[in-house]
Amino acid sequence: MRALLSKLAWTPSSMVLRGAFSSNRAAKNGGKDDILGPCLPDLWPTPSSLSPPPLPPSPSPIRDEELTPTIINGELIAKEIRSSIAEEVRQMKQAIDKVPGLAVILVGQRRDSQSYVRCKIKACEEVGISSRVAEFPVDCNDNEIVNAVSSFNEDPSVHGILVQLPLPQHMNEEKILSALSLEKDVDGFHPLNVGNLAMRDREPLFIPCSARACIELLLRSNVKIMGKNAVIIGRSRVVGLPTSLLLQRHHATVSIIHAFTENPEDITREADIVISAAGVPGLVRGNWLKKGAVVIDVGTNAIEDRGSRHGYYLTGDVCYLEALSVVSAITPVPGGVGPVTIAMLLSNTLDAAKLAYRLS
Amino acid sequence: MRALLSKLAWTPSSMVLRGAFSSNRAAKNGGKDDILGPCLPDLWPTPSSLSPPPLPPSPSPIRDEELTPTIINGELIAKEIRSSIAEEVRQMKQAIDKVPGLAVILVGQRRDSQSYVRCKIKACEEVGISSRVAEFPVDCNDNEIVNAVSSFNEDPSVHGILVQLPLPQHMNEEKILSALSLEKDVDGFHPLNVGNLAMRDREPLFIPCSARACIELLLRSNVKIMGKNAVIIGRSRVVGLPTSLLLQRHHATVSIIHAFTENPEDITREADIVISAAGVPGLVRGNWLKKGAVVIDVGTNAIEDRGSRHGYYLTGDVCYLEALSVVSAITPVPGGVGPVTIAMLLSNTLDAAKLAYRLS
Repeated sequence: MRALLSKLAWTPSSMVLRGAFSSNRAAKNGGKDDILGPCLPDLWPTPSSLSPPPLPPSPSPIRDEELTPTIINGELIAKEIRSSIAEEVRQMKQAIDKVPGLAVILVGQRRDSQSYVRCKIKACEEVGISSRVAEFPVDCNDNEIVNAVSSFNEDPSVHGILVQLPLPQHMNEEKILSALSLEKDVDGFHPLNVGNLAMRDREPLFIPCSARACIELLLRSNVKIMGKNAVIIGRSRVVGLPTSLLLQRHHATVSIIHAFTENPEDITREADIVISAAGVPGLVRGNWLKKGAVVIDVGTNAIEDRGSRHGYYLTGDVCYLEALSVVSAITPVPGGVGPVTIAMLLSNTLDAAKLAYRLS
Repeated sequence: MRALLSKLAWTPSSMVLRGAFSSNRAAKNGGKDDILGPCLPDLWPTPSSLSPPPLPPSPSPIRDEELTPTIINGELIAKEIRSSIAEEVRQMKQAIDKVPGLAVILVGQRRDSQSYVRCKIKACEEVGISSRVAEFPVDCNDNEIVNAVSSFNEDPSVHGILVQLPLPQHMNEEKILSALSLEKDVDGFHPLNVGNLAMRDREPLFIPCSARACIELLLRSNVKIMGKNAVIIGRSRVVGLPTSLLLQRHHATVSIIHAFTENPEDITREADIVISAAGVPGLVRGNWLKKGAVVIDVGTNAIEDRGSRHGYYLTGDVCYLEALSVVSAITPVPGGVGPVTIAMLLSNTLDAAKLAYRLS
């Protein structure tokens, strides 16, 4: 067993530093980098080098009898959300004879990306949102994608546009994402949306789907957020960053842990709410968690397993069995954050359509 | 003695909650508020209700003989920065016969705002930046200010525009700040600048001056930031938020404390770097600090003192004398963050001029 779609790379730390300081950004901007900080990738240590990799969750886990943790059912919560979206879509169709439309741009043949896009399209169908996918070969160029984005920007039947990430390494992600019309940025990755999420007296048009999913899971599980210590593990633009900003708007005391954090387990052990989005299978051990903590595991890591139907199984960042004997509530992987994230995409697409038709 | 320009208000907590949930934003947006969180003001407890207010720093403080803390000299650091800016301005004048220009908009008669504006104008003069102030009466309307902003936007001799905050309560700050040209937003408060500061692979055009000042003070004092635990006390758009984002770019592990944090002293006690920007005199006691911590005190609180020349003295958020026996380094108030913040405004204005003349 080994990480199949691994986000880790083994690089001696001296190389990491040299690589970072000679990055494009550093070279381009000279002194400004001092104040903006060095651009370094988050390279997590592999917990598998310290301990065996986590096993797939067993149907009858051994746990502390004193504590019966709530397994937060993401499938059920997503179903409830989808059902209310489907009802709104029906009403929109009835009222103005229009339905929300989502366009997805997929570049290359990554198996995980293809699988995510299939899930999103299927979810759209289920609630009555129209969808289309524009597929491009891995060796296409930036302009082809920018042109596709521009044509979707101008198409009044498309209300939400999503560029499936990651793009191939040769592409300029910033240029492509900047081409998206702000009103159709249902992923919420436009810097203006991020800025308006960060500023508590403003409102972003769209909140990134994973961040919304984390908060929905907490709110619908009646977890108190205000005043609580929340730790976010991982600081990606897709999950960690927006989730940290959104939790602050809910008045949690937020600490953000990343690969350079010297004592992640000590900080995590103080948290009432732990949101892990590092993408490192089994990073968060049971002894990292405070008794009674609530854990939202955003990690969705594919582990090779020749015995299984697809040749792999999915596991989170958190050692699930270990956590079960400590936490008061936890999301499983799969069946936790994933389905709710897709439901949030549907919700953002519906919001975009309401915005376009001035129904909100 | 009592807080003269107090940022605190005494409100029973039930009123605070009711007020917040019936705020304009909540009323206007209905359900969206659930996911964005309730809009609540940060009302800090007054430490003076627990202990006597802090005294002005004594010239010969009593301290632990084992530890000789570094008093970070903000005046000296600011002087060095101003000197290098003055040199660049001279070079610009020589090369293209232009100098950077700053326009300040001041509304009303607040003594503190008037004093800040005077300092900024004086600092511009010292380095050869041209400046002008547009003053408006407290009862002017939004459109008058937006018109002034627009005319500065179009004026090629103005490279930076600064609206002195806070504006009178009847004014729409968001509308006014949004009118600023992004290329002239030397305060860095435009949501696009904030978004680009938050996203680590992007670059904002300008970083808010106080946040830059905090990092400059750390860097020029040879404080290691990467991997260190940093605590930010206060989460204002002007200081706390941008400083938390900038420290993350320097790979600190950042925790953000605010008025709803249940155990601010426990979290602060774990920090290697403490940045306090709550605006509450004496909030941070000596026993909140870890031995050897580095403290940047952004609080600039005026305390009435009839015996002094101006009728008040300035004090920070940190109990300075108590901190001296614990910390390894600290910025005094006054003479710490303040002068460096003004130097950063000059630097941003220079950058704006270089941008306009394509010299960067």
